[in-house]
Amino acid sequence: MHAYRSHTCADLNKSHVGDTVRLSGWVHRVRDHGGILFIDLRDHYGMTQVLADPDSPAFAEVEKVRSEWCIRIDGEVKARDESLINPKLPTGEIEVFIREIEVLGAAEELPLMVFGDQEYPEETRLRYRYLDLRREVMQDNMKLRSDVVASIRRRMWDKGFREYQTPIITASSPEGARDFLVPSRLHPGRFYALPQAPQIFKQLIMVSGFDRYFQIAPCFRDEDPRADRSPTDFYQLDMEMSFAEQQDVFDTIQPVIEGVFEEFGGGHTVDKHWPQIKYADAMKWYGTDKPDLRNPIKMQDVSDHFRGSGFAIFAKLLEQDGTEIRAIPAPGGGSRKFCDRMNSYAQKEGLPGMGYIFWREGENGVEAAGPLAKNIGPERTEAIRQQLGLGKGDAAFFLGGKPAAFEAVAGRARNVIGEELNLTDKTRFAFCWIVDFPMYERDEETGEIDFSHNPFSMPQGGMDALEGDPLQVLGWQYDLACNGYELISGAIRNHRLDTMFKAFSLAGYTEEEVRNRFPSLVNAFRFGAPPHGGCAAGIDRIVMLLADQQNIREVIMFPMNQRAEDLMMGAPTLPTNEQLRELRLRVIPEED
Amino acid sequence: MHAYRSHTCADLNKSHVGDTVRLSGWVHRVRDHGGILFIDLRDHYGMTQVLADPDSPAFAEVEKVRSEWCIRIDGEVKARDESLINPKLPTGEIEVFIREIEVLGAAEELPLMVFGDQEYPEETRLRYRYLDLRREVMQDNMKLRSDVVASIRRRMWDKGFREYQTPIITASSPEGARDFLVPSRLHPGRFYALPQAPQIFKQLIMVSGFDRYFQIAPCFRDEDPRADRSPTDFYQLDMEMSFAEQQDVFDTIQPVIEGVFEEFGGGHTVDKHWPQIKYADAMKWYGTDKPDLRNPIKMQDVSDHFRGSGFAIFAKLLEQDGTEIRAIPAPGGGSRKFCDRMNSYAQKEGLPGMGYIFWREGENGVEAAGPLAKNIGPERTEAIRQQLGLGKGDAAFFLGGKPAAFEAVAGRARNVIGEELNLTDKTRFAFCWIVDFPMYERDEETGEIDFSHNPFSMPQGGMDALEGDPLQVLGWQYDLACNGYELISGAIRNHRLDTMFKAFSLAGYTEEEVRNRFPSLVNAFRFGAPPHGGCAAGIDRIVMLLADQQNIREVIMFPMNQRAEDLMMGAPTLPTNEQLRELRLRVIPEED
Repeated sequence: MHAYRSHTCADLNKSHVGDTVRLSGWVHRVRDHGGILFIDLRDHYGMTQVLADPDSPAFAEVEKVRSEWCIRIDGEVKARDESLINPKLPTGEIEVFIREIEVLGAAEELPLMVFGDQEYPEETRLRYRYLDLRREVMQDNMKLRSDVVASIRRRMWDKGFREYQTPIITASSPEGARDFLVPSRLHPGRFYALPQAPQIFKQLIMVSGFDRYFQIAPCFRDEDPRADRSPTDFYQLDMEMSFAEQQDVFDTIQPVIEGVFEEFGGGHTVDKHWPQIKYADAMKWYGTDKPDLRNPIKMQDVSDHFRGSGFAIFAKLLEQDGTEIRAIPAPGGGSRKFCDRMNSYAQKEGLPGMGYIFWREGENGVEAAGPLAKNIGPERTEAIRQQLGLGKGDAAFFLGGKPAAFEAVAGRARNVIGEELNLTDKTRFAFCWIVDFPMYERDEETGEIDFSHNPFSMPQGGMDALEGDPLQVLGWQYDLACNGYELISGAIRNHRLDTMFKAFSLAGYTEEEVRNRFPSLVNAFRFGAPPHGGCAAGIDRIVMLLADQQNIREVIMFPMNQRAEDLMMGAPTLPTNEQLRELRLRVIPEED
Repeated sequence: MHAYRSHTCADLNKSHVGDTVRLSGWVHRVRDHGGILFIDLRDHYGMTQVLADPDSPAFAEVEKVRSEWCIRIDGEVKARDESLINPKLPTGEIEVFIREIEVLGAAEELPLMVFGDQEYPEETRLRYRYLDLRREVMQDNMKLRSDVVASIRRRMWDKGFREYQTPIITASSPEGARDFLVPSRLHPGRFYALPQAPQIFKQLIMVSGFDRYFQIAPCFRDEDPRADRSPTDFYQLDMEMSFAEQQDVFDTIQPVIEGVFEEFGGGHTVDKHWPQIKYADAMKWYGTDKPDLRNPIKMQDVSDHFRGSGFAIFAKLLEQDGTEIRAIPAPGGGSRKFCDRMNSYAQKEGLPGMGYIFWREGENGVEAAGPLAKNIGPERTEAIRQQLGLGKGDAAFFLGGKPAAFEAVAGRARNVIGEELNLTDKTRFAFCWIVDFPMYERDEETGEIDFSHNPFSMPQGGMDALEGDPLQVLGWQYDLACNGYELISGAIRNHRLDTMFKAFSLAGYTEEEVRNRFPSLVNAFRFGAPPHGGCAAGIDRIVMLLADQQNIREVIMFPMNQRAEDLMMGAPTLPTNEQLRELRLRVIPEED
C-alpha cells in the first residue's frame, strides 16, 4: 500500500464497504460522541468521517489529535446507518474505522480556525495565510483562479495564439505609473525596472513577425495603497495581433471572455450581444466609461425643457456655454420618500442636491409632483415624462451644469437608483465595448492639450485627422466594461513613425523627446512595422467577478497587505551592508 | 474584403487559381527577371511568390519596395508553369499577380538581413532583435519554446495539477545565490527581493492543503556572466505534491518530460526506461552526476591490478589512503595515435597525462601494447582486459589519485572518447535519475561539515540517521540527467521541525538562526505540515536540447547580453533624481 494514502478523502462510497483503506489529511473537527471519537478528515479533495472507539488499537493515539493536525490513518470502510447518511457529502454513505494512526505533522494552538466561519482581522489572515488558505472558500477561490487562467490559455491557443514570455527585468516602460526599480550590481548606479505592462514588448513581437501573441503577464506598478488593487503587481491576459483592425480584436477576444464567463459564471446569464457604445454616449447615458448595463436606466439630455423655464436655477445655468440638464429616469421610484433619499444621497456626494419629479395617480390620471414640477408647470413636465417614457409610480432626477462636473456623480446615482429599485439584474454578466475614445483632452488649468488615454493608439483618420482640431480626434481605442467594471483595455496601435511624431507633437513632445523616451519602439518602427493592435484583460478582476468577491486579496494566493508588506514572508526587509556595498548604494537616513 | 488579408502567406494552392486575394507580409526578397519583379512575400505562416510585370497598374509602386518592407497586395492567383512548381513550398504551385499594392511600413537600410544565412555579431542581433527574430530559425525556436511550455501545461493539468502564481516581489529566498533587490518606496531603506525560485512558496502551498501545484515560474538570480545561462532570470517548471514519496514524483514527472521529448524531439529516440543511479555510482562510472548515457562507456575501479605492480607511479599512489585507479574503457580506440591524442587531451586539462593500454593483433592472438602494459606485465594486463571486457582494437585509459581530484576530468575524457570513437548515439535522448545524494560534505579546507545540496531535503532514515555520522547520511534528493545536462532537480522535503533543526545543527546552525533565516517555513511547519516533495525542471535547457542549440539566448525572445544589458531596450539606465529621492537612496560614486 502507498505510504500515505490508498484514496483521497473524496473517494470512498458504498462500493468500498469492507475495504481496508489508507487516508491522509487534516483533522477538520473532532467530536466525542459517548466515548467514540469522530474525526472529519479533510484533504484538498474532500472530507471523510473516520472514527475510533475504545476497542480500536489506535484509540489512545486518536485521543491526542487536535484540529489541523496532519495525520495518516488505516482503517476499514463501513456503511453508515441509513439514518446517518449525509447526502451532501460525496463520502456521506460511509465512515472509516481507524485501526492505525500516524501523526504526520502536529499543530500548535491555532491563531486562526479552519473549521467554521469565524472572521479574523486581515493581518491575522495574511500572517497565517497557510491556515487561511485551508478554508473552503479560499480553496475554492484559488482553484477558480487557476481554472480560469487555464481556460483562458486553452481558448487562446485554440484561436492560434502562442504565449511568449517577455522580460521581467527590463527598462522603464511608458505606462505613466511609477516603476519598481532594480539596482544593477554589474553596472552600479544604473537600475533596471520591472515592467508596468508588456506593452512595448508585445508591439516589438509584432514587428518581429509573430502575428498572434498572448501572455498571462505579471505587471508591476508601485502604486499608492487602495483597497481594490494590489500595491505591487497584478496579472493580465495580454494579447496582440498583426494585420488587424478594431473589429478583429473584438471578434477574437469576445468568445474567449464569453466562454470563460459561461464556464465559471455559476449559472448567471452571460450576454451574447456586446453593444459598441461610443465614449461620448457612454458618458451621456451612464455617466461613466464603464457602465453597468444590468441596470436599464439610460440618462437623457432634457435641457430644452428647462431652457427659459420657471425653474430659475436650471434656466440660468443653461445660459452658460457648455451646460446641460441631464435626467436620470427612475422607473418605480415614484414616491416622495425615495426621491428625498436620493436627494440626500446627492448632497452627501457633494452636490447641492438633485431636483426631481415623480408621477402619481392624480384626479385626472397621471399627475406630476414635487417642487420642480410646480416650478416648470404641467406642459414641460409632461414633455419630460414623454421623452423619458415614464408613467405613474415613476420618477426622474435632474442634474445640471457642465457635464464634466456632474457626470461622475450622475453615474453613481444611476447605480444607486438601479440597486434601490431592484432594476439591476444580479444574475447576469452584461458586457459592452466602449469605443471612439478621444485622443486628446485639454487640461482645464493649463489649457494645454495632452493625450487623454494611450499615446500609442492610432488616431482614427490617421495623419489627416491630426491636421485638424486635436480635441475632435478619436482614437482606435476601446475598453470592455462588465457589470460596471473595466475588464479590458486596448487599441489599434500607431505603427507609423510619421503619424506618431505628429500625434506626440500635438501633445507638446518634440521628435527628439519621443525618440529618447521610447527608443526601442521608435527604432523598430524604422524597419517595416506591420499594422497591429490588441488588448489586455485584468485577470484578478475577472476572477473577482466570477468569485463574487470585492477584495482583490481574496483571489491572490499570497497577497501584500495595503501597506505593501508581506506579513508571512516578512518583506520588505533591511538589506545587509554587503548587499548595499555590492550595489554601491547608501540609504539616506530619515530626516526628523 | 478584410483590410489586410484574405489569406495568410501559407494558404494558397492550386484550388485558389483564378481567385482575387489580398495578402500582407514582409518583402523577403525581390528579384528582377527580365523586367518582371518577383517578390517572396513572407508572413509568420509562410511565403508566397507575388509578381508584377510592367503591365500591372501597381508596377511603379512595386519597383520601390525593398527587403523587409511591410506591404499589402491585392492580386490574382495563377497556376505556375509545371516546370516552375516549387514542391518544397506549400504555396509552390501558384503565384499571385499584383494588381494593387499598399506600403504598410517601409524599412530603412537594414543593419541585419533577414533573408539568407549571414552571421552577425551577437551585439547586432540583440540590438536589432526584432529583425533577428524574423529569421526562420528564430521564428522556429520561439514557436518551439511556446509549444513546449503549452504542452507541459496540458500534461500537468491532465495529471491533476493546478498552476498557482507565487509572488515575484517578495523576501529574500534561501537558494544560496545572489538576490536581485527592489527598494521599497513606502518603506524607505527596506528592500524586497525577486525570488530565486518559488521553493518556499510551493512548500507553503502544500502546507495550505493544495495537494498538487505547478507553475511555469520565472526565477531571478543575480549571477556573474557565463555563456550558457541568462545573467538575470530563467524559467522553470516548478512542481510539488503532498503525501508523496520519491517514486511518486518520478512516476508523475517522467511521462510529462518523456511526452514532451517525444512530441518535439524531431524523431530522436526517447528512452522509456530511466535508470535510477546512486550519486556515488554516477561519480564512479561517469565522473559526473549528470552523465550522458548515450555514451556506453562505464568507468571501473581497477586499483587491485595496479597495487604493488611494476608501474611505480600508480603503485605508490595506492599506498595513500582514499586513492584509487580508475579505468576508462575505449572500445575501438586501440591505436597508438588515438591513445596519444587522449593523453595530450588530459595534459591540456591539467593532468600529468593518462596512462593507457591498447590491444592489437599480436603473434599469439590479442596483444597488449603501450608503455603501461610493459610496466605491469602481461598477467595484470590480461586481468584488466578481462575485467573491462575489451578485445583487439580496443583501449583503456587510467587515472589515479583521490577520486575527487580526477573524477571531473575522467568524466570529460569519457565524453571526448565517446565522441571521437562515435560511440555516442546522437539520435537519442537518454535519461537517468541520480538518487541518494549525500546530505553533507566536509569542507576540505576548514574541515567543517556543511550541506552538500539542498538543506530542505528530508534525510533518508529521518531523525535516526542524523544521530550517526553525518557524512553517511543520504537525502531524499534527486536529479534528472539527459544527454549530459541536468534537466531536473528535486527532493522530498523535510517537513518536520525537529528533524529540520537537527539537520541544520549538524551543519552548524542554531535553532535561532534557522528561525531567523526561514521564518515563514518554520512558522508554517508548526501547524500541521504534510509530507511533500517535488522538483523543478529547467525550461530554457529543455528547449535548448530540443532545438539543438548551445546558447540559451537562441531560445529566449528578448535576452540580456552577457554583461546583463538589454541593448534593445537600453537597460539598465540611470535613475532620475526624483526616483532616488523617493526611494531615499544615494549612489556612491566610484572610487578612482
